[in-house]
Amino acid sequence: MMLNQFYVDDLIKSALKEDINYIDITTDNLIPQEQEGEANFLAKAEGVLCGIDVAIRVFTLIQPDFQYEIFINDGEYVKKGDIIATVKGKTRTILKGERTALNLLQHMSGIATMTNRIVKIVEGTNASIADTRKTLPGLRPIQKYAVTVGGGKNHRYNLSDAAMLKDNHIDAGGGITGAVKKLRSKLGHMAKVELEVRNLDELKEALSVDVDVIMLDNMDNETMKKAVEITNGKALLEASGGITEETIRGVAETGVDIISIGALTHSVKAFDISLKIVK
Amino acid sequence: MMLNQFYVDDLIKSALKEDINYIDITTDNLIPQEQEGEANFLAKAEGVLCGIDVAIRVFTLIQPDFQYEIFINDGEYVKKGDIIATVKGKTRTILKGERTALNLLQHMSGIATMTNRIVKIVEGTNASIADTRKTLPGLRPIQKYAVTVGGGKNHRYNLSDAAMLKDNHIDAGGGITGAVKKLRSKLGHMAKVELEVRNLDELKEALSVDVDVIMLDNMDNETMKKAVEITNGKALLEASGGITEETIRGVAETGVDIISIGALTHSVKAFDISLKIVK
Amino acid sequence: MMLNQFYVDDLIKSALKEDINYIDITTDNLIPQEQEGEANFLAKAEGVLCGIDVAIRVFTLIQPDFQYEIFINDGEYVKKGDIIATVKGKTRTILKGERTALNLLQHMSGIATMTNRIVKIVEGTNASIADTRKTLPGLRPIQKYAVTVGGGKNHRYNLSDAAMLKDNHIDAGGGITGAVKKLRSKLGHMAKVELEVRNLDELKEALSVDVDVIMLDNMDNETMKKAVEITNGKALLEASGGITEETIRGVAETGVDIISIGALTHSVKAFDISLKIVK
Amino acid sequence: MMLNQFYVDDLIKSALKEDINYIDITTDNLIPQEQEGEANFLAKAEGVLCGIDVAIRVFTLIQPDFQYEIFINDGEYVKKGDIIATVKGKTRTILKGERTALNLLQHMSGIATMTNRIVKIVEGTNASIADTRKTLPGLRPIQKYAVTVGGGKNHRYNLSDAAMLKDNHIDAGGGITGAVKKLRSKLGHMAKVELEVRNLDELKEALSVDVDVIMLDNMDNETMKKAVEITNGKALLEASGGITEETIRGVAETGVDIISIGALTHSVKAFDISLKIVK
Amino acid sequence: MMLNQFYVDDLIKSALKEDINYIDITTDNLIPQEQEGEANFLAKAEGVLCGIDVAIRVFTLIQPDFQYEIFINDGEYVKKGDIIATVKGKTRTILKGERTALNLLQHMSGIATMTNRIVKIVEGTNASIADTRKTLPGLRPIQKYAVTVGGGKNHRYNLSDAAMLKDNHIDAGGGITGAVKKLRSKLGHMAKVELEVRNLDELKEALSVDVDVIMLDNMDNETMKKAVEITNGKALLEASGGITEETIRGVAETGVDIISIGALTHSVKAFDISLKIVK
Amino acid sequence: MMLNQFYVDDLIKSALKEDINYIDITTDNLIPQEQEGEANFLAKAEGVLCGIDVAIRVFTLIQPDFQYEIFINDGEYVKKGDIIATVKGKTRTILKGERTALNLLQHMSGIATMTNRIVKIVEGTNASIADTRKTLPGLRPIQKYAVTVGGGKNHRYNLSDAAMLKDNHIDAGGGITGAVKKLRSKLGHMAKVELEVRNLDELKEALSVDVDVIMLDNMDNETMKKAVEITNGKALLEASGGITEETIRGVAETGVDIISIGALTHSVKAFDISLKIVK
Repeated sequence: MMLNQFYVDDLIKSALKEDINYIDITTDNLIPQEQEGEANFLAKAEGVLCGIDVAIRVFTLIQPDFQYEIFINDGEYVKKGDIIATVKGKTRTILKGERTALNLLQHMSGIATMTNRIVKIVEGTNASIADTRKTLPGLRPIQKYAVTVGGGKNHRYNLSDAAMLKDNHIDAGGGITGAVKKLRSKLGHMAKVELEVRNLDELKEALSVDVDVIMLDNMDNETMKKAVEITNGKALLEASGGITEETIRGVAETGVDIISIGALTHSVKAFDISLKIVK
Repeated sequence: MMLNQFYVDDLIKSALKEDINYIDITTDNLIPQEQEGEANFLAKAEGVLCGIDVAIRVFTLIQPDFQYEIFINDGEYVKKGDIIATVKGKTRTILKGERTALNLLQHMSGIATMTNRIVKIVEGTNASIADTRKTLPGLRPIQKYAVTVGGGKNHRYNLSDAAMLKDNHIDAGGGITGAVKKLRSKLGHMAKVELEVRNLDELKEALSVDVDVIMLDNMDNETMKKAVEITNGKALLEASGGITEETIRGVAETGVDIISIGALTHSVKAFDISLKIVK
Repeated sequence: MMLNQFYVDDLIKSALKEDINYIDITTDNLIPQEQEGEANFLAKAEGVLCGIDVAIRVFTLIQPDFQYEIFINDGEYVKKGDIIATVKGKTRTILKGERTALNLLQHMSGIATMTNRIVKIVEGTNASIADTRKTLPGLRPIQKYAVTVGGGKNHRYNLSDAAMLKDNHIDAGGGITGAVKKLRSKLGHMAKVELEVRNLDELKEALSVDVDVIMLDNMDNETMKKAVEITNGKALLEASGGITEETIRGVAETGVDIISIGALTHSVKAFDISLKIVK
Repeated sequence: MMLNQFYVDDLIKSALKEDINYIDITTDNLIPQEQEGEANFLAKAEGVLCGIDVAIRVFTLIQPDFQYEIFINDGEYVKKGDIIATVKGKTRTILKGERTALNLLQHMSGIATMTNRIVKIVEGTNASIADTRKTLPGLRPIQKYAVTVGGGKNHRYNLSDAAMLKDNHIDAGGGITGAVKKLRSKLGHMAKVELEVRNLDELKEALSVDVDVIMLDNMDNETMKKAVEITNGKALLEASGGITEETIRGVAETGVDIISIGALTHSVKAFDISLKIVK
Repeated sequence: MMLNQFYVDDLIKSALKEDINYIDITTDNLIPQEQEGEANFLAKAEGVLCGIDVAIRVFTLIQPDFQYEIFINDGEYVKKGDIIATVKGKTRTILKGERTALNLLQHMSGIATMTNRIVKIVEGTNASIADTRKTLPGLRPIQKYAVTVGGGKNHRYNLSDAAMLKDNHIDAGGGITGAVKKLRSKLGHMAKVELEVRNLDELKEALSVDVDVIMLDNMDNETMKKAVEITNGKALLEASGGITEETIRGVAETGVDIISIGALTHSVKAFDISLKIVK
Repeated sequence: MMLNQFYVDDLIKSALKEDINYIDITTDNLIPQEQEGEANFLAKAEGVLCGIDVAIRVFTLIQPDFQYEIFINDGEYVKKGDIIATVKGKTRTILKGERTALNLLQHMSGIATMTNRIVKIVEGTNASIADTRKTLPGLRPIQKYAVTVGGGKNHRYNLSDAAMLKDNHIDAGGGITGAVKKLRSKLGHMAKVELEVRNLDELKEALSVDVDVIMLDNMDNETMKKAVEITNGKALLEASGGITEETIRGVAETGVDIISIGALTHSVKAFDISLKIVK
């Protein structure tokens, strides 16, 4: 799995401790320890699958010799009724891991599916779709990974790995030119710098300094078109703010390079998948 | 705050470590350490607020002498444009805590708002709205709390604190009667038992044994009405499965006692709130 | 094992870090790494065994290919001189894990044995024996599990999963009727409510409201007999407070449903078991 | 407090998370947030108090401005009816912290009291009373501390800080002389070495090598008296194995230097203390 | 402090648990709890100070009302004999925190001092000095911070935030051009790409693809001079491998942009500072 | 491995989380998941190897079926060009684990090598070489272990397991005699006591009380010779303070028993080892 396995294991263990606490009073009291079972992950919707390795890992963490076969991998398209994977092991393992596995798989597939739908809307334009830091506490790794599985791109991961100057930073630095200069003198050569501008005058000043990316904050499409012309490839342009599935094609057609969308990770609709036990 | 503060603090710290890592390369390099600032939490939508104490706690964890005033509390209704709270402290604190505070506040208010909307739809009926175990790893406490703030009820918290018998449990126990009997002989007096039934015959058998709640799994409204009549108050009835905002009023009018909805926690739409820095 | 394995593993690891710190200066300096050994868990007392899976897990965590055979399982009766299990692996593993394995096994078997002795005393009466929240920090899961292995029942696990109203709650709620009503309006359908009463008048009021269990706090047997008559099955009755092995039969014969005993977990006498290395 | 506060805080937080989980459904729903209360820790038995700072810390961790006054400190003798401390703060804090505070205080005072009783039994002899590594997982620090508060001494803390050679170590090292020599060549100058002997011949060999302490394993008093004579101060002698409150005076009178007793920490009887809320 | 305080607190707490374990048997047994003391951090060498906030935090974590005054801040030059800060509080706090505070302060100042010495050697050239991922487990944040305090720059923080292609990546991607193209199609717009080349032919190919930085691996100065000419500003050039304080000026004069040095963090010489207690 | 494996695993996992974060954006995007590779740990310097089990563990934690063969073990001497071990597994595993494995191996071998060089300098004298508590946070176990691998001895591990009286302790205890007496009355029989003296008068007083070790603080060689004569074997003598590789032979020849050196762990020079991938 691409995701850091130590993070994934910790996440799953904390989820299972949250869900099982010290015992599953129904399953542990009724299902014999030695009983074996089999179950299928069944798609109940259409979209891009994401998280099947993570979901399977729930079971192999509970029972190391748990068996499984995966038919549809992360990034592949699933249709309603598809069997995604089949799992086999102790019935207790299946019943105890079921909820945690589905919670993760549905969330990740929900992100990949929404991302993919939006990526397709802007197909043919110059724009790539990026996520944001609007993620849920503790879930940023799986959320950012799911965005890439859906065809989106990751914006900076956190406040340490790339710079983003907003109002306050610019004011404190004595204007765009001064702030960027000061910042560049502190940063290493691997850190990119993005600057947020609110109008074309700010854009022009931004283009005169050493920034890699310029964020066009809540501009209308007309203004963004002009911004693209003015910029003329001298920096990457990112559109951000209040962009919906309905309006995004228009934004993409302005010629901006990146469109970042918080909803990819902050307003996820779970993708419907069930775990059907085979009788 | 009602929520266990140690859980909340751990959650916030892990979120801030995820988001800041070792330094905020923009803020720490540009904003002078001693600079003070002020900011307002501003509602940009309409709904039920939830998580303001948690959001404020982000800042007081970073800077113990951080100042704030809360105008709108958890459970109160906010309208677009309302100032929810005002915060005051080091500008660095505000900028470093902003994203984490908003991510939590928007998620929790999103849950409370959706829950409340659904609670209002069923107003006047017998039905209460309950959450499920379909939560996100590590977030169950704040998600379940947000459901109650929105006027919903918490279903069992985890697999340890109440029993729920499904197919597999019943089969392993030798049928409804045998399974419930066996389980009751093991459980303490504080654990409730719920049983899932798929038709009225199973319901009748369930009524002959000692269960507290019966879940009507994916039944149509006609059948549920009959179930209510048959049950006649001898157990609580819970409707579950595929119920949407469009269909829920009809379900509630069948007379069931509880309607549980996974979407309350698995498909949350973030409630739009911003943190506006006062110049 | 029924216990949540992630909890068990964390508990064992923390115990081994506490006990070994960074090296076992005796064993690691004297016993050759490749030396193999064998040892028997030997009962030196009579009672109900509990925790053998946990004890064995100590060794398999240190050395994954460690061998063992279990002859007596959790819940079975052991007599002085019985060999409970035999283990085989590196001598270093045996010597490093010995103390932690025994500490856990003796504590858990101590609880199961005391519980079982008390359960037998009340045999033939209506009363079941329940534990309390008087557990040791971090050990609640293994302690509560051991109570069930001894034939006892678990009271509520924690303050989240069931309600218990005492004086202060009742006063704050404006009396028994008001408090219960207010509480019920907040709680979900899976949460049971218990109410503590100090005399028969309070009992009568308690019976007029919607509570599942009534705790008779420190009442004498005469009063409890009257309480049982008055209640007549309308709620479960729990006796609690100052009950000893000497007095418990009398309490059970009053007809109460549950007798809860803190000593099961707060005053445990370790059950004597040794690990005898086979020469 | 003498105990490492970071350990104590972690222990308390884990206990409170275990006990409260995400909310106290009774207290948080019934007691108004602003309600203030007062309560007294009341001794219900006679013995040596231990853990009052730890118990108070439970409340100040929940509510930093919580007030308290301590009347009886760790190590002091309490009589039935004594008020140990009075606490004052939000009623919610008192009710949520009560169980955890008492669980710790009763356990620690139980250890100190038992230790003290035994220390008094051997008063006037040469023997000091020591604990063992027979502690409960995660509780070793508070248990070992409580032993010292009761007047006992701490044996080695763990396998890293002092050496103890038993059969297996001696066999692997080629006899007492070879094993001790090999071990000494590896150990630093701050590590003490103890050797277990089973008879007087082994004792004599032990006295010819460089060991600090010799453990007399399960010897009768006659033999131990001879051991004391033979040793004549050339090493410290520790008696261990099956010693009870009934037999310990006799053991002490043999002239041994240390008597170690596992029961001090593995078979603790909780010391009865209650938290009485002041109306 | 610029460093993420939650990381710093966790680091200090883990260090204090490692060093104090459950009690400081010397200090806690001899120094009265109420005794107050004062001490000075005293420089015993010359260089750039780093970590004074972290060192002070050790004491305020142990005792929140601990007093201090800092005379020399991070990044300032200290001379032998300078008093860096004075601290005041319980003597126990001073003695328990001393070792941990000094260990951190000496390590961080050692890094800042070495970095600064090297930065000065290359002064006047185009080259900036950067660290690497050759850090010690758990200490990367304080090590990377110390490098910047000494005037150096941070290379990428970890494998997630910027790309670095070496042999194996290039081979797997089908050569420089193919590998970079494939990688760029996956990465977001905030991630920089660096490519390692071993000769001028590879450099030329690297210049024809979209990379931000080119690492010249173990080249001699003549070759690097040619590389600088060929590159002519089209990418940043980083020299790396086997560069010492003796040879670095020559490397810097070739005109490369960055020189990265593992020794800044993997071979730190502690900067001598003592904590002198004032009698 | 002698080191507590749970500590080692936690250390490695935290290092890998620090280094990989959520994904290795170069390797995971370019190297096919199924690609296999082979690599050799290659010595690039001469000295004593330490940490090869720890380094290999990095890879087997990432990929449990990872293959390896170790040719040179901890404590053995390596020469430039020696192949220490060969590893075989997924190329992704090799590339992701490489940096962490080397960081640990180079640090530990650096300590073992420096220690061994110093041990050889004092060969033939009475003096053994000991480490101190001047270690790096979180690394004490591997640092102390590496000292022993290099032929040095471990001083006390932490403040709990042995006592060391300095000025402040002596003053608080009312002088050397009073302080030692008071301390001995509190300590168990397994704790050694060391006392720091600054001149021969203090030494004489120290010899009249019950201490195991006397530290000669910053004395010149002449004075230390006299100290050795005066002591005449009645206690162990430890030289400490400002001793370098240049001056240590002279110190050793004074006849002291132990020379402790902070630089062994606080000023480590990484031992150069590379991981060479086999094409």
